[in-house]
Amino acid sequence: MNTEFIKKEQYYIDLVNNYLKEELKPQDPLYDIVLEAMNYSVFAGGKRIRPVIMMEFSKICGGKEEDILPFAAAIEMIHTYSLIHDDLPCVDNDDFRRGKETNHKKYGETIALFAGDGLLSLAFETASKSKSKNTLECIRILARQSGVSGMLGGQTIDKEYENKEIDLKTLIRLHNLKTGALIKACGEIGVLCAGGSMEMQKAAIEFCEKLGLAFQIQDDILDVTGDFSKLGKKVGSDMDNNKNTFVTLNGLEKSIDESVKLTNQAIEALNLFNENEFLINLAKKLLNRDN
Amino acid sequence: MNTEFIKKEQYYIDLVNNYLKEELKPQDPLYDIVLEAMNYSVFAGGKRIRPVIMMEFSKICGGKEEDILPFAAAIEMIHTYSLIHDDLPCVDNDDFRRGKETNHKKYGETIALFAGDGLLSLAFETASKSKSKNTLECIRILARQSGVSGMLGGQTIDKEYENKEIDLKTLIRLHNLKTGALIKACGEIGVLCAGGSMEMQKAAIEFCEKLGLAFQIQDDILDVTGDFSKLGKKVGSDMDNNKNTFVTLNGLEKSIDESVKLTNQAIEALNLFNENEFLINLAKKLLNRDN
Repeated sequence: MNTEFIKKEQYYIDLVNNYLKEELKPQDPLYDIVLEAMNYSVFAGGKRIRPVIMMEFSKICGGKEEDILPFAAAIEMIHTYSLIHDDLPCVDNDDFRRGKETNHKKYGETIALFAGDGLLSLAFETASKSKSKNTLECIRILARQSGVSGMLGGQTIDKEYENKEIDLKTLIRLHNLKTGALIKACGEIGVLCAGGSMEMQKAAIEFCEKLGLAFQIQDDILDVTGDFSKLGKKVGSDMDNNKNTFVTLNGLEKSIDESVKLTNQAIEALNLFNENEFLINLAKKLLNRDN
Repeated sequence: MNTEFIKKEQYYIDLVNNYLKEELKPQDPLYDIVLEAMNYSVFAGGKRIRPVIMMEFSKICGGKEEDILPFAAAIEMIHTYSLIHDDLPCVDNDDFRRGKETNHKKYGETIALFAGDGLLSLAFETASKSKSKNTLECIRILARQSGVSGMLGGQTIDKEYENKEIDLKTLIRLHNLKTGALIKACGEIGVLCAGGSMEMQKAAIEFCEKLGLAFQIQDDILDVTGDFSKLGKKVGSDMDNNKNTFVTLNGLEKSIDESVKLTNQAIEALNLFNENEFLINLAKKLLNRDN
């Protein structure tokens, strides 16, 4: 991976982390425990993929950093909230995430529930601070893609099919919602917040859709081939939870082929943006990750 | 109660219910179960106090119905989400609400969790549809008052003090956040969405703050003096959960006096609005309610 990519990625990550830290400052000892729990999961080693994608699309389209930052922080809050709630005993009942105890193992179920709720509300408070002329439209996208028509719809399908047979078409729909919706929002909001054209929005969405699915297939592959020390969570937990994955349905080899194919399609969608090198590098990095 | 008040209140309630129904329509059999659960709690007999207050403040200030309706629906969604999550086993573990099974008793914990999450996201999607020139500022208030700095902060204090001694000052802070924050948002958003003055905002907030606290004290009184058939939930559940209430701290008589005093103060705050008869009637109705 070239150093220019790593430098730029780290630049985005630092910006977002500083912004997140500011938004998550303690307020009042009476309820700071829930802010502490929110901080715990937000700063538990997330890769910040979503904010990075969003910020680069904004930059490509000539957007201002200070306009996209509130949305970049907001989408990371929403991603984190979904992980906290997904780990709860009534959903996946996971004890570890990114090598650390899950939120409810650390703070108890009530505070973990509230920490997730708090991050979701705070995401919209934060997003509303952007000065982009398209802020309202971007908030609508953020809300829609995180709600029932998006990520939450996917989480619901996931849970409904936990002990049932699932066909590939439904599995793809599941992941296009559960993981894809939020990643898609990154491209869409990144471009729209910067005032990019409809054509640019379409290309960004196309990139994100392919990347999101490749990312999820890679996740399923790592659940089989990964190891705890790198992954930071239990290997084989999908199997233990009777979860249908691309690997259980299609086998390992075909899954690997598919994630390569989708990554290449994502990269093709970048033609409109003069084959943006940063995003190409990001797509390749995600394909070759081990955590 | 005069018939003009009842007619106007019902008019507002019908508008909000129709709007809510539209926003909560089924979308896809794959995840409609969570929309069904959202509908179940939204249409479980809520009194729609918050939307009614909001719509009247907007009307007083010359606002358009179609501008405030998205926010009126949104605040009811947020109120309902908080009830669903508060009823969960890891919070209050309540089996009944408004005479019906709680969401998780009916749909299971996972779907109840998601139904709450879905309502919170949908609230912001819905609010973003308002065409008021102050929509963004109103969204910021809505997010702030429902999050850690508002309602959720109160829920956290409530839980943290469940088996501990609480002093009156902290109890008032708890309720000013847990119940008060969202009611306050109704006044603030109602006025702001309609383009009312800062002075009007202040008066509306003052009315809502006093009303919110009176409402909560009345709730605590009803937990002792009410009956299941009217209340729709178990009487004495605060006592069972070792909850500190105004009644356990101050006694029944003093609590009744206080709720009367606060209601009168709320009504005084309406001077600026020529002693708006509708809101005076509403305040009196809430004081004398039995559910």
